[in-house]
Order: sequence, then structure tokens, then C-alpha cells
Amino acid sequence: MGESRARPIFYVSDGTGITAETIGHSVLTQFDGVAFRSRRLAFVDNADRAREAAAEIRAEGEAAGYRPVVINTVIDPHLSALLAESGAFMLDVFAPFIGPLEAELGMPRTPRVGKAHGGADSAEYDQRMNATNFALTHDDGVQANFSDAEVILVGVSRSGKTPTCLYMALHYGVKAANYPLLPEDLEQGELPAKLQPHRKRVVGLTIEPRRLMQIREQRRPASRYASPEQCRWEVEAAERLLRRENVPVLPSTHMSIEEIAGKVMQALGLNRQHY
Amino acid sequence: MGESRARPIFYVSDGTGITAETIGHSVLTQFDGVAFRSRRLAFVDNADRAREAAAEIRAEGEAAGYRPVVINTVIDPHLSALLAESGAFMLDVFAPFIGPLEAELGMPRTPRVGKAHGGADSAEYDQRMNATNFALTHDDGVQANFSDAEVILVGVSRSGKTPTCLYMALHYGVKAANYPLLPEDLEQGELPAKLQPHRKRVVGLTIEPRRLMQIREQRRPASRYASPEQCRWEVEAAERLLRRENVPVLPSTHMSIEEIAGKVMQALGLNRQHY
Repeated sequence: MGESRARPIFYVSDGTGITAETIGHSVLTQFDGVAFRSRRLAFVDNADRAREAAAEIRAEGEAAGYRPVVINTVIDPHLSALLAESGAFMLDVFAPFIGPLEAELGMPRTPRVGKAHGGADSAEYDQRMNATNFALTHDDGVQANFSDAEVILVGVSRSGKTPTCLYMALHYGVKAANYPLLPEDLEQGELPAKLQPHRKRVVGLTIEPRRLMQIREQRRPASRYASPEQCRWEVEAAERLLRRENVPVLPSTHMSIEEIAGKVMQALGLNRQHY
Repeated sequence: MGESRARPIFYVSDGTGITAETIGHSVLTQFDGVAFRSRRLAFVDNADRAREAAAEIRAEGEAAGYRPVVINTVIDPHLSALLAESGAFMLDVFAPFIGPLEAELGMPRTPRVGKAHGGADSAEYDQRMNATNFALTHDDGVQANFSDAEVILVGVSRSGKTPTCLYMALHYGVKAANYPLLPEDLEQGELPAKLQPHRKRVVGLTIEPRRLMQIREQRRPASRYASPEQCRWEVEAAERLLRRENVPVLPSTHMSIEEIAGKVMQALGLNRQHY
């Protein structure tokens, strides 16, 4: 029940609402101890949708007995005005930037509704698609050819290579391959021969053995693969190997996928636009 | 050369810089005709990195002959102060929200440095991982079992199903499968039998034949698969089939991957946090 005593927060956008939600989360973490209940209202891009959204926000506030908070990334001021009729406490993400930037750049904005959020650019789409296909065909790529890879992630099985590669492909259009360090590679104690020519593009991921165990246990319960000894041995052997080979290593345990991807890009000096 | 006469923009963050970059892009689209050159400075999370970043920003501004603009999502005010020593025009993403929210919520913020941006939560990570594995094992899943799928995307080959499923998995932790409508399905003219029991979770993607041709041509140049007739026939037959079956259909041609994913979530009434 306490649910209904939480303050309603709405992330409202003329696009996906992702920016509004991301900013809202960041800001709300600065107010511990306040109970929030949040919803995303996406694609509010015409007057009807804005009126609908306003009615929904107002109703939710009345039900909760709290004034709702709206984190707003709708660009069109007319739609924002309609939203404000909900009576919610409005926080506009873009508005505080526009005036100061107009002054700094010495020119007025040229309002472009809808242009702010993505939309499809086919060259961009192709790049992201090609990179995604690359990641899919070079996943756990013991057999793969790494010549075209811009990034090659290595690490023990389940250390987070696959999602990181997919993220880099989808969001930076980077061709990312991955290679699992198998027990036989670890016994060898050196970077597998097929990776040697590409070592400048190799980044290692490591993970705490305890966390690795948890993840592997979900996948193959009560297996040797998920046992504490095996996990500990693999992680230690992999870290030793990567250190000896001077491969940069990132600890993935306490990072989100987007953080790991960002650190990998940084480690290789790749400066790409994030889509 | 004109490059050097572009105004330098820096997206600076104590995390990945993605939020800063997204907002920056949105705001800058409102200033057409100004030449910008942008860079992301990520993981500026201590005084040394902040001083380094400030020096870099200052140098870049001097080289360009323009005062740089900084879009800043660093939470710690001390680090922001160090950044401001660059002399750049500072635009802070979070600051304008804090004061008004303190007033509205009737409480001061409880500053949490570093907490604002992601960080790993293992339950969240597991959900995203499981969903990603699901998407990978249910991709073009003619053989797949769809009982566990929360979303089943259907459409002709290369209509954007795979990246959309991966995006939904990575960012919403949604289990998304996809099923390609093959020529034999299209001739049949109805939703394949194995999808029938799950029709409430089926969403169609469609694409303009001209764009489909382009994409297929890259994959299999000069093939029948990529021919104008084949692309046109498949798209028309798929649209007819989906209309007859009352499956909601989204046109993917002019949307970005994140927009398509958002619209699919909306079509199914799925309200999940975006990570």
C-alpha cells in the first residue's frame, strides 16, 4: 500500500523519454528518504497526447495525495504549456540551457521540434547495424577472424564480454569481438596466438570470483564450471596472464554495462559519438 | 581546416558522459548554423582528472580561438569548480534542478557523489544479462519456443528485429524474441501456427521497400533477396498479413533503434525502467 503515499514522478518526452528518465534518476538519488513512484510518458509529440498526458498526471497526483513532479524534455513550448496544466511541479531539462546559450553564442535558437531526439539517419543506422552483426558473428569467437575488430574483449567465460560488445556496437557503432579465455588458454599462460597480431586492440575484463560463481551457478547449477575453486582459479590465472601480457584490465564487478563499455573505449582511446 | 574554426563543446561527466552528450546534442540542434566540434570527457571523478580535463578544455579553446562550452554532469560541486577554471562557458545539467526540488520537497539534498550514474546493481545486471541471453538464443527463432517471451517481433528479414530485441534486453531487461516472416509464411498469409498462442505479445516491424533493398544489397549484393521486386512483394505481403491478423505494426524506416524499442514497449503497455 505505502505505494500510494509515494510521490508520483513523470518522465515526459516527445521522444523515447530516456533522457528525461536518466536525468530524473540522477537528480532523485540526491534526495534520499523521499518515496518516489515513477513513470515514463513517451512520444508526447502533439497537442492531443499532451492533454492526455496532463490528465493522467493530474489524476495520479490526486490519487496519491501529492503534487506530481514532471521531468520534461518536450521541446515544443506549446506542448510544455499544455503539460503544465496538470498542476504538476515542472522541471524542464532543456529550457535552462537555451537562454544562456543564446547569449553566449550571440544568436537566437532556431526552434526545431522533434529534431532534438534521434530520428533515423541511414548512415548511422547502417554503422550500428553492421557493428551489431559483427558482434553477433564474433561472439565467443574462438573461430573468428579478428582483423576487422576495433576492440577485442578477453576474459573468462561469463565475465561480461558479450553484453559489453553488443552495447559498444549498438551505441558507438564500434566493431567489437570477444574471445573467451578457456582453461586451456589459462594453462598456456599467454595470449592465444591468434590474438597476438591484434594485441593493441585487446582489453581484458575481470570479475570477482564470488560474483562469477553466482552468475555461472544460474547458468549451470552445481557444476564444476560454477564451483568456487574453478572460478577462483580461472580468475586468478586470467589476471596473471593479462598482467604478464600488459593488456589493460577492467574490473567489471561493480560497473554497469554502459560504464564498462565507456571504460573500454577510453582504454583504447576511441572517441566516438554515443547514439 | 574549417575544423579549427568550430566552437569546441565538451561533454564532461563523472560517469560515462552519455547523459551529458545526449542533452548536449538535443540543445545544440536548436542552434543551427553554428559549427561545433564535440568531445566526451568521461569518468572525471577526482580532483586530478578534473584539473587535467580543465587544462585540456582551456588548450582546446585557445587553439580554436573560441570559448569552449562545457555540458557538465559532474555531481560533486568541488570538481565542477575545478572544471570551471578552464574558463569555459559552463552549463550544468543537474544544478538547475536541485534548488527548486529542495524547495518543492521541503528538504535539502543529501549529496551523493558517484551515486547518480549507474553503478552496478547485481539484480539489475542479472535481469539485463538474462534478457540479453534470451534475445541471443531467440534471434531469428524459427525453432524457438516463445512461451517465455515478453515480446515477439515479427517482420521480413532485415526489417530491424534483431537490434531492437537486443536494445530492449540490454536497456529494459525485457525478454524479446523475434521471428522472421519468410516467403513461405507470407504465401500462407497468416500468422505462423507457433505464434498464434502468443499473439498478444506479437508486434510487427515494417520497412519501406526501397530502404530494405539498400540494407539487403549490402548483405547479398545483386541477389534475388535484394531485388526491388522481391523486397516490394515481401513488404506488401507482410503488411497485409499483419493487418489481417490485427497485429500492431510499427514503421521502422525513419526511427532510430531506441525509438523503435520505445514504441514497441508502448504498443504492449510495458512500463519498465530504462537502464
